[in-house]
Amino acid sequence: MKSTSLIRANVRSLHAYVPGEQPKIPGLIKLNTNENPFPPSPKVLATVRAAVDQRLRLYPDPSAQPLREALAALHGCASENIIVGNGSDELLALATRTFVEPLPAGGTRTSPSRRSQHVVQYFDPSYSLYPVLTAIHNAVSNPVALKRNFDIPSIAQLKKEGTWDFNAALTLITTPNAPSGRGYKTSQLEKLCAAQNGVVILDEAYVDFAEENALELALRFPHVLVSRTFSKSYSLCFQRIGYLVGHPEMIAALNKIRDSYNVNGLGQVAALATLSHLSYYRKNFETIKQTREWLADELDQLGFKSLPSRANFILTRPPRFSAEEWLQKLRDQKLLVRWFKNSTVSKHLRITIGTRGEIQSLIRAVHLILNS
Amino acid sequence: MKSTSLIRANVRSLHAYVPGEQPKIPGLIKLNTNENPFPPSPKVLATVRAAVDQRLRLYPDPSAQPLREALAALHGCASENIIVGNGSDELLALATRTFVEPLPAGGTRTSPSRRSQHVVQYFDPSYSLYPVLTAIHNAVSNPVALKRNFDIPSIAQLKKEGTWDFNAALTLITTPNAPSGRGYKTSQLEKLCAAQNGVVILDEAYVDFAEENALELALRFPHVLVSRTFSKSYSLCFQRIGYLVGHPEMIAALNKIRDSYNVNGLGQVAALATLSHLSYYRKNFETIKQTREWLADELDQLGFKSLPSRANFILTRPPRFSAEEWLQKLRDQKLLVRWFKNSTVSKHLRITIGTRGEIQSLIRAVHLILNS
Repeated sequence: MKSTSLIRANVRSLHAYVPGEQPKIPGLIKLNTNENPFPPSPKVLATVRAAVDQRLRLYPDPSAQPLREALAALHGCASENIIVGNGSDELLALATRTFVEPLPAGGTRTSPSRRSQHVVQYFDPSYSLYPVLTAIHNAVSNPVALKRNFDIPSIAQLKKEGTWDFNAALTLITTPNAPSGRGYKTSQLEKLCAAQNGVVILDEAYVDFAEENALELALRFPHVLVSRTFSKSYSLCFQRIGYLVGHPEMIAALNKIRDSYNVNGLGQVAALATLSHLSYYRKNFETIKQTREWLADELDQLGFKSLPSRANFILTRPPRFSAEEWLQKLRDQKLLVRWFKNSTVSKHLRITIGTRGEIQSLIRAVHLILNS
Repeated sequence: MKSTSLIRANVRSLHAYVPGEQPKIPGLIKLNTNENPFPPSPKVLATVRAAVDQRLRLYPDPSAQPLREALAALHGCASENIIVGNGSDELLALATRTFVEPLPAGGTRTSPSRRSQHVVQYFDPSYSLYPVLTAIHNAVSNPVALKRNFDIPSIAQLKKEGTWDFNAALTLITTPNAPSGRGYKTSQLEKLCAAQNGVVILDEAYVDFAEENALELALRFPHVLVSRTFSKSYSLCFQRIGYLVGHPEMIAALNKIRDSYNVNGLGQVAALATLSHLSYYRKNFETIKQTREWLADELDQLGFKSLPSRANFILTRPPRFSAEEWLQKLRDQKLLVRWFKNSTVSKHLRITIGTRGEIQSLIRAVHLILNS
């Protein structure tokens, strides 16, 4: 077959990223991809519905200007500090292409002193997309282990262990961490940012479920960007809206290489409307946080070992059966959770915080499984 | 300022692509970005409105499976022959990254025999995004002049002139051509495809306004892909839906490097509904084609020189004043058309075919300008 030779060697060697399952099983309780269990605000839905008219024939705002202005007002910065993307995944991919030099084709050796320009660095475990984006870009992954309790090692520890690259072209920090849910203090992240010479993205996909956020660092350090998404906090996975906050020069560079009309129009409408109804969502954050603590307590009483979480999921080590067996047993009860095969957390399950009713069903199923 | 040195040299040197203006001027007649003047079918709008519900909290189908199946049924192929993108722009950019080896950083020389692997080739003039995508990918642009009448040179001519690269990694052909509107026969495109050793994308963004399409070539030649979009024909610019048709191995390679959830959910809903109401759109195609012929006749009677078009726009050379002056004079009358500064068609205007009423207004304005 001739066509394979038409494909770049780097792309041929890739394995595709496997996103969490999106099955269409009636009655299934879906606790596997960290979606928000609550629908968008009724006012947001009404605004989007009202926008479904002849405007669909027109191109959307290519720079999402009204949305960027509203975000700037929210964060106390200028719209030039913000780029909106087709989900934050698009922006993370754009960042690899903006800040990281790919390896030359054919595997030409790079001198060790020049290696850092090719490096995408992140902690292990963290968002499983990072190594995929690195491989797609033909760059060099540098995963560095978190501490056993999923905390970030101190600068002194990182220096001592010697595997961390303080000159890495791009460092991606999931904060709060996924899949553990561990939260990090801004003061701790600040030290890491200050020690880093390359670009740092603080990936705050789950930050609305945490106690603090580090947005100020993106407005203080020119080499630091904060990534946010409307998917989880604002119940808008379907419409793909994420954004980065950072120095205008960094944002301008990302803008140069993005698709001109990268953010769909109804997504822009939905996100903009969301920012006018934040109190609805803030109430949901509180409910989710309470449900999270309740679930962790209940599971721990049943012999699970749950990690403290600052996100809308918990990572928990189940008793009696392997995590893989639990995955199947829960699925048999129409409960879908996430298990990361071949990872450092393969003995754990990650469970998204659903509604109280959904979590009640989960706890009931766990009882059943343990008593069967 | 430290941050510039954090940005790849290739990205620093880029100029951003300038999309056609999307101004918000009340009463403006917008004939500059080839949008369809008709809204989506009322049934499509109703279907999208009905989908604005709690599902927005969930991720969209990551592979747009139902839409791909419907497209496959339409085109008489398998869903594995199809990839859906966030507009066809995303897919064209993905194709550069899948099929074209970027130049190494720092401008290392490539031997002439290996140059073709870096080459993105296209005719001049054609879609102005191609050189932008090439520069973003740090590849080599090879623009080759169309004939004076915007026809594609014969293989013999291309060989004789010697600038065409029959081994180019990627060749992009806008068919019908933009900005001229010239249509190409499938038999003519077939000869070009057969002579080409690299990947060829036939960019059929405007094909629904033409007399024939070349989709069969994508299903016959493993190295040929056809690009289509819902933006122009199906009045869905706002929702960013494009797709490529081609050999499953080529589609699989593109899938490996796309974002997991690249196509927003309401866009998928809208596109799928569109395919159930094609007769509404086919009627619009006929109206637009008739209006196109009428506009060209009227303008030519006023001293314009319009090129025969198979698209939803015409390229026309205005009399008396320069194209730039016409752009401004028409704008003063609240009519926005497109002028390509610093291009081979800088003496022309490109006018999108609007409704009969809009085109009537344009003709009236032209009369006024000529008589003032």
